[in-house]
Amino acid sequence: MSVSPQNWWVGMQNEALQVMLHEPNIAKKQWQLTPYNGVKLISISKTDNPNYAFLNLKITSQAKPGDLVFTSPTGERFEYPLHTRSSNSAKRKGFNSQDTLYLINPDRFVNGDSSNDTAAGMLEAADPKSKGGRHGGDLQGVINALPYLNDLGVTQLWLTPALENNMPSYSYHGYAITDFYNIDPRMGSNELYQELSNKAQQQGIGLVMDFVLNHFGSEHVWMSDKPTSDWINFNGEFANGKHATSHARQTIQDPHASQFDIRQFSDGWFVETMPDLNQRQPLLATYLIQNTIWWIEYANLSGIRVDTYSYSDKAFLANWTKAIMSEYPAFNIVGEEWTTNPAIASYWQAGKNNSDGYTSSLPSVMDFSLQEALIQALNEDESWNTGWVKVYQSLANDFLYPNPNNLLVFADNHDMSRVYTELKQNLNKTKMAMTMLLTTRGIAQMYYGTEVLLDNTGSNDHGDIRIDFPGGFAGQTVNAFTGKGLTNAQRDMHQTLRTLLNFRKQSPALGYGKLTHFSPQQGIYSYARIADEQIVLVFLNKNKQAKNWSLEYMQEVLKLHTTATNLFTKQQINLTDAITLAPMSATVLVIE
Amino acid sequence: MSVSPQNWWVGMQNEALQVMLHEPNIAKKQWQLTPYNGVKLISISKTDNPNYAFLNLKITSQAKPGDLVFTSPTGERFEYPLHTRSSNSAKRKGFNSQDTLYLINPDRFVNGDSSNDTAAGMLEAADPKSKGGRHGGDLQGVINALPYLNDLGVTQLWLTPALENNMPSYSYHGYAITDFYNIDPRMGSNELYQELSNKAQQQGIGLVMDFVLNHFGSEHVWMSDKPTSDWINFNGEFANGKHATSHARQTIQDPHASQFDIRQFSDGWFVETMPDLNQRQPLLATYLIQNTIWWIEYANLSGIRVDTYSYSDKAFLANWTKAIMSEYPAFNIVGEEWTTNPAIASYWQAGKNNSDGYTSSLPSVMDFSLQEALIQALNEDESWNTGWVKVYQSLANDFLYPNPNNLLVFADNHDMSRVYTELKQNLNKTKMAMTMLLTTRGIAQMYYGTEVLLDNTGSNDHGDIRIDFPGGFAGQTVNAFTGKGLTNAQRDMHQTLRTLLNFRKQSPALGYGKLTHFSPQQGIYSYARIADEQIVLVFLNKNKQAKNWSLEYMQEVLKLHTTATNLFTKQQINLTDAITLAPMSATVLVIE
Repeated sequence: MSVSPQNWWVGMQNEALQVMLHEPNIAKKQWQLTPYNGVKLISISKTDNPNYAFLNLKITSQAKPGDLVFTSPTGERFEYPLHTRSSNSAKRKGFNSQDTLYLINPDRFVNGDSSNDTAAGMLEAADPKSKGGRHGGDLQGVINALPYLNDLGVTQLWLTPALENNMPSYSYHGYAITDFYNIDPRMGSNELYQELSNKAQQQGIGLVMDFVLNHFGSEHVWMSDKPTSDWINFNGEFANGKHATSHARQTIQDPHASQFDIRQFSDGWFVETMPDLNQRQPLLATYLIQNTIWWIEYANLSGIRVDTYSYSDKAFLANWTKAIMSEYPAFNIVGEEWTTNPAIASYWQAGKNNSDGYTSSLPSVMDFSLQEALIQALNEDESWNTGWVKVYQSLANDFLYPNPNNLLVFADNHDMSRVYTELKQNLNKTKMAMTMLLTTRGIAQMYYGTEVLLDNTGSNDHGDIRIDFPGGFAGQTVNAFTGKGLTNAQRDMHQTLRTLLNFRKQSPALGYGKLTHFSPQQGIYSYARIADEQIVLVFLNKNKQAKNWSLEYMQEVLKLHTTATNLFTKQQINLTDAITLAPMSATVLVIE
Repeated sequence: MSVSPQNWWVGMQNEALQVMLHEPNIAKKQWQLTPYNGVKLISISKTDNPNYAFLNLKITSQAKPGDLVFTSPTGERFEYPLHTRSSNSAKRKGFNSQDTLYLINPDRFVNGDSSNDTAAGMLEAADPKSKGGRHGGDLQGVINALPYLNDLGVTQLWLTPALENNMPSYSYHGYAITDFYNIDPRMGSNELYQELSNKAQQQGIGLVMDFVLNHFGSEHVWMSDKPTSDWINFNGEFANGKHATSHARQTIQDPHASQFDIRQFSDGWFVETMPDLNQRQPLLATYLIQNTIWWIEYANLSGIRVDTYSYSDKAFLANWTKAIMSEYPAFNIVGEEWTTNPAIASYWQAGKNNSDGYTSSLPSVMDFSLQEALIQALNEDESWNTGWVKVYQSLANDFLYPNPNNLLVFADNHDMSRVYTELKQNLNKTKMAMTMLLTTRGIAQMYYGTEVLLDNTGSNDHGDIRIDFPGGFAGQTVNAFTGKGLTNAQRDMHQTLRTLLNFRKQSPALGYGKLTHFSPQQGIYSYARIADEQIVLVFLNKNKQAKNWSLEYMQEVLKLHTTATNLFTKQQINLTDAITLAPMSATVLVIE
């Protein structure tokens, strides 16, 4: 019999717990709870599939940790553990604008345990030479890299999903989940995931888990044995693409959208191998909410990233975010709403006063608008409507967001061509891009390997974007951990990011300071961040010549200060004279 | 002595009236009001310029029409007329979504009175051959064209400003106003403007006046004799462009904008010949509010268009719109906020719940986003993110607007290349564009001459865009009024628009029906408008081939209807079979 979740905790804010039992004809069994102080079996939900039963428990604040015992009149028996929560679990602080998330595809980062590259019972074996194959990276590899990441200045790890993806092929990306409660054996184990979280935390690094609420892997038992007939959208049929999602996310907000189009977007499948979950089914909705809470408690998470956010049922998303944030009010969750339209992205952020009355509790969304603007700004010539003005205008749209400082900012991620590639392998531009991201408002995110200029020039294949990290795999000649074989450009990029990231870690201005930016002039975009008596000035000079730059226009942020320190050179700078901005460079000045 | 306004009315909702007096040393005179029932002279405001005085009157509901008499101890005397309002003036209905506005540059439409082409005292004489010169078109010309416009199906006229523009050159456009209370003599007179309004109304056509609140012509007496030292922004100096506006309208909403940039946008001048008014100056603010109300009353206007809307002071705009809409609660005003960002445009619409608390009473804004999308849609090949999807996505953003049906939709205007030019002189595309505009949600606007395919191919010069209307000027070989010399394509366009406009006039579905649109498929964008038992279906087929098109996906709007009438061919159409959509065509089906 499979039991989900495999355990629970006492002292949760929500007293209700739904335990899913799965076994042939389990619905016929009359389960009873052996009396247990503070715990009641309220009811058992059955469905149109006799192979499932759902125990509805109430666990009050009186309940103590221990094992619940369930028995049936026909002699069956199983125990169900209730654990103690770790101290301050409910008050945990999620990642925030002081953080930098480092995004890792664990299969492509470091192979820390070659014994699990191929695992018994898993359909796909390792194939490190194949772009779409499994390369052997794993959780042990991430654990091994923690000192390196800490030295770089990273404060949070976002790993793409490490849950079981027992698919026949193309399973390395992790988004075709076949077991929502277990780490894939080729990645490690639940215990090793817990160990990663603990060891990271010892270095001041949090762990952000990547959740998929919209879909699952077609090899999951739910496809062959559906818990209910309405568990999967479009009656569980892909119909040769007729039931594929339209990706038309704007149907959710559009007051003129047809019901036909809303259903096609929301219920449509991502691909045939990832059937679409019907979160309007209440048993499934509760399953997904509990699954999330289970991982937060079990692995002591500091945050969540949600895949393909708006593709799930919107009423469910409101309930899911509310349930999580009620248990953990200072937590953070960032949703992937892949749109460059900030009106649509901001619709989902908690606190937004939407005209249709929709209320979300999602604290953070990703800033795809700024990502696009940043790449365009650095590739385009300057004019009244090209170049830096794109970044300036993108940030100006922040009036749409209830909390712009809780947006995730990034130059690229695992689904996009890498920033160094997008900027035509131009080191100076890449340094400007990363300096901008690490000094503007919001939570910063960088993709693994950006610090050593990983590159997919010539290919947009996901396998080339998610390239093996140098030093993580046997047979590589370059090693980013030791510095062996790195070019000067790679060392320069690494040192620039290390300086910025470590400054950012402890800078009130960059962490939560007010942003005041100035209209780009002569190819120079400039702004200030100000908090707690600290002022950070940033000048991004796209010109191929050095510029003598008067700060007269900046009086409102300079106040009466006359000197600053250059973050990179440590030189003292006199602000009353024109300052010198090197060609194609980012200048960061700190006033304290 | 100049007195502004030259008269007022009894029975206005706002009892206060400010009368500006201008004459050398007028401030020294001690004006007294000869007792008049219901009217009081509250105070006289003086400024740092002794040549101006402002009488602050209170005109209560007891006051009857007649002449106020003002005298001074030194023997001066003047009369000030109070008129009766026309009946239902306060309840007048502004233009709305049932209307189509026809935009005219009166200098370029019809020369109805050649005797006023050049006028005494006006610095610029007629020069019909020059692109930027005055061509002689006038108000009499518009009056002469009323039967033609009524037959076409137009219901509102928007004329670009006809107020005095006594500038030495390039004055034909009308936006450099040198007298806010008088029609330019080369256009006609105040009385003729009133006559135009009356005669238009007799044909069911309303008159929309174009107001400029942001700036004025540098030959206005206010430049040589400023009413106050703060009447004009940036201390009345253009400073060789240092004080030119940045056009960075987003600074108004941007939470990160610097004060430096906000001032540069809002206080900056449009051009040197159009100094920027400081509407924070309360005497000026009242002057502008009263000037607007004066013209509404005097000329019985059915609406207002506001030039360069957001460039004026935003607090003033809130007060100005509130003052107008308080006097005329069912009136309409459309602001020109030239941005394709609907988040910014919607900020200004009445009823918007802005995050910064800004409250506007402006009923309507122009939909530049849809204009851009429509042209792109028809010029681009179809793909997931090009072609019709641009229009679909633009309309999806309507959730940002409190009242999408009160947006002004248009394919072009007097500041943009003409639609036929933008669509590469493709008749079928132009018919699709205009059909879309006249059948989607919103108030429709068309530019004069679109019905005969006026064209500026090869030039974006404003003079070529604002080309002489055929039949309006001596020596033309083509006459749109008589049909003489029109090509078949011109006749086709005229007939298509005539059919659409006259249907639109009386169609509840097009006038105020709910829009439901469908995701573009195979190059076909389709939607329904529904009101009062009338259903209008529109199919825009961009394919170069005819399409057999099943309406299965449209069940939610078709309900159980099985037949419809084709608006253009009058054929009965069976909706249960696939319908035939001609290549590159707009099909409009009506179900009643």
